[in-house]
Amino acid sequence: MQEYRPLRVALLGAGSVGSQVARLLIENKAELAARVGAELELIGVVVRDIDKAVKAGVPRQLLTTEAEDVIVSADIVIEVMGGIEPARTYILQALNSGSDVITANKALLATHGTELFDAAEQVGAQLYFEAAVAGAIPIIRPLRESLAGDKVNRIMGIVNGSTNYILDRMDTEGLSLEAAMAEATELGYLEADPSLDVEGYDAAQKAAILASLAFHTEVPLDKVYREGITKITAAQMEAAKRDGYVIKILAIAERIPANGGEAGVAVRVHPVLIDRKHPLGAVRGAFNAVFVEAEAAGELMFYGAGAGGVQTASAVLGDLVSAAKRHVAGGPGLADSVHANLPVLPIDRVHTRYQVTLEVTDQPGVLAKIANTFSAGNVSIETVEQSVRQDGGKRSKTATLEVGTHSATDAELSAVVKALAASESVESITSVIRVEGI
Amino acid sequence: MQEYRPLRVALLGAGSVGSQVARLLIENKAELAARVGAELELIGVVVRDIDKAVKAGVPRQLLTTEAEDVIVSADIVIEVMGGIEPARTYILQALNSGSDVITANKALLATHGTELFDAAEQVGAQLYFEAAVAGAIPIIRPLRESLAGDKVNRIMGIVNGSTNYILDRMDTEGLSLEAAMAEATELGYLEADPSLDVEGYDAAQKAAILASLAFHTEVPLDKVYREGITKITAAQMEAAKRDGYVIKILAIAERIPANGGEAGVAVRVHPVLIDRKHPLGAVRGAFNAVFVEAEAAGELMFYGAGAGGVQTASAVLGDLVSAAKRHVAGGPGLADSVHANLPVLPIDRVHTRYQVTLEVTDQPGVLAKIANTFSAGNVSIETVEQSVRQDGGKRSKTATLEVGTHSATDAELSAVVKALAASESVESITSVIRVEGI
Repeated sequence: MQEYRPLRVALLGAGSVGSQVARLLIENKAELAARVGAELELIGVVVRDIDKAVKAGVPRQLLTTEAEDVIVSADIVIEVMGGIEPARTYILQALNSGSDVITANKALLATHGTELFDAAEQVGAQLYFEAAVAGAIPIIRPLRESLAGDKVNRIMGIVNGSTNYILDRMDTEGLSLEAAMAEATELGYLEADPSLDVEGYDAAQKAAILASLAFHTEVPLDKVYREGITKITAAQMEAAKRDGYVIKILAIAERIPANGGEAGVAVRVHPVLIDRKHPLGAVRGAFNAVFVEAEAAGELMFYGAGAGGVQTASAVLGDLVSAAKRHVAGGPGLADSVHANLPVLPIDRVHTRYQVTLEVTDQPGVLAKIANTFSAGNVSIETVEQSVRQDGGKRSKTATLEVGTHSATDAELSAVVKALAASESVESITSVIRVEGI
Repeated sequence: MQEYRPLRVALLGAGSVGSQVARLLIENKAELAARVGAELELIGVVVRDIDKAVKAGVPRQLLTTEAEDVIVSADIVIEVMGGIEPARTYILQALNSGSDVITANKALLATHGTELFDAAEQVGAQLYFEAAVAGAIPIIRPLRESLAGDKVNRIMGIVNGSTNYILDRMDTEGLSLEAAMAEATELGYLEADPSLDVEGYDAAQKAAILASLAFHTEVPLDKVYREGITKITAAQMEAAKRDGYVIKILAIAERIPANGGEAGVAVRVHPVLIDRKHPLGAVRGAFNAVFVEAEAAGELMFYGAGAGGVQTASAVLGDLVSAAKRHVAGGPGLADSVHANLPVLPIDRVHTRYQVTLEVTDQPGVLAKIANTFSAGNVSIETVEQSVRQDGGKRSKTATLEVGTHSATDAELSAVVKALAASESVESITSVIRVEGI
């Protein structure tokens, strides 16, 4: 093992992730030095509230509120404070002084990623972010390196643990959305303002990061289509179960072939029906999983804890060892490029399948009328299930139709739904949900 | 993008993997050059039978039977010929001339890994082997890098697609072992001599490689405990299903705490009962998956195609891009170390649980006698199910006991099974199988 000077590590933030990173750095000091070939010296932990960090177990003598002093004297800066500012300013400071940076900050990467990567490239510094997507699951490195010789066609990810927990509880226990959300809040899975999770904003940030890596393309957050789980009902869950499906909220990024239009990629987050036997269908509780379809590798899936302080700290330390080894031995880090730079297309261009549930007037010819609406919209029907409720022994005046479509563009499918809503024979549309994974 | 001279790549072997590697290198030349920052020039493909390789689609002008010429003039050598010799000699030749080597050869790594890694270290060359374990699934790189700051406690892998296919067919279709094996042979999943797969030799090689990486320890193949699937019966499968289990053959490597003896690691391959809801329980067909338990990261799983020419070629190309980038930018590759060098312990020291099915004489006091045999052997019973067959209306003279144990050492458990076999009250032991994943 070659002798090398100790590497100076600065830590920004001592919350649930930061305090674990500090603990592991201190407790595993000898083991980490053996793996890296140099000691990793934690020179300071920057926090806003020193007493709170002491309570979280960080040694008082490491703590400081003065970020700049620590940042400029570090070889490697770890940012786990979250939020846009001052995280952005600190990271730029670190990169501009030539330090490598490790961040778990998905919101920052999804909104200011280009600025940060450009800054890193200009000075030859590295920006690592395994912890920013899917917590402890190694997904960034496999995408950047293991699949570097392959061509990714599609990524489908359960990338938000809170919403997967909520949907799983609705599925397994028959809970209402409200009850499942209350449970998730009690367990600390949901913030006081749950919209970041349940409206899909968090998943959209991760989708943008994954898509930009997988397709070597800049993916602005505002081009990610987003639909949350707030309209999912217990009745939809029950119906999904009957059909052998489960409802998940997925982040999906995929190549779209030209097909007359412009070729590109489309990135979206929304609830889907997925076959219970699909590997993603078996992902329970608050776990995360990312399913990748690559041209040569075929189907891959990466599964694990998507959040949690100590789990996310594991990903941070993996990046730290990589960054430190690069210091010791010199040479390349995990450079990315946006050399492909494909257009990011609207969801209209995506090919998908819909399952539409309708209440229709129970009269002769209605089914034909509905079927015509689909075919007029260029959407072909795969399955129809019709059921008529008995209301207190009397035949109801409405029937329920559950229509499963073949694949069509999202534009065509949503136009059909609009036409159905305007149809006289349709009393109400009770569920519209995309079907994926087939 | 910096200008760099073309990198010279030699390919040894043009079988199902090699011919796909050649195809992808030729077809994706421009894309690969953009990712690497240098052209990858395939300078020669070494084969025994040129005509056969031409039929597999490799351009004739690239083919040669003279290995040495190609090897000495390459920057990077890809070995996908398989077998021990001449693969070993070629790889040593390449490393000694300073080339980096990429290999998919698990048999060679499991038996001569130390020699090859030593040779690489002496000249500062790199040996990459993502394709050697679990085909296209990125597992080597995550273990080496993503978890480099964490501590792996246990790995459980479905690492042989053929046997997983066979067990899956027995599970889902109720096939006998023979029928399922016949099907696997027909599909090309089994070789003419199937023992490499069904006796667990292939899985044992992969287990040795995974364990050595995960625990930074040299794991000789002959210290891997190995038991195949040849004794698994349709009746065992059926019983497993009844209990909510599925039978899988797993490669398991884990840390063993001192507990009075020597601390170390144990590595084993054998059939197990695993909960159907466990992530490994949902791995169907010929797919592979590796489940990792790490101290900080918690539970992770990596899932995908474990074999197949084009899938394995994806892993080879990922390694090739890494190796090539290292050439372009200099610096460290994926160095491993055996700095921990833990003792590799026999399976006796493993803590596990058994499920034992017995035919016993149906007489008063037999259950107590059996229970005594377990407790005398220091094994505590968790569940007992007793059933008495009716033979043509008459009560049979024997009863069936299915005993599930609590955790104990494998030595204690196997001693109890021996004592049971010698007991007068036991007519026969019809099934002994370990239970994992709880």
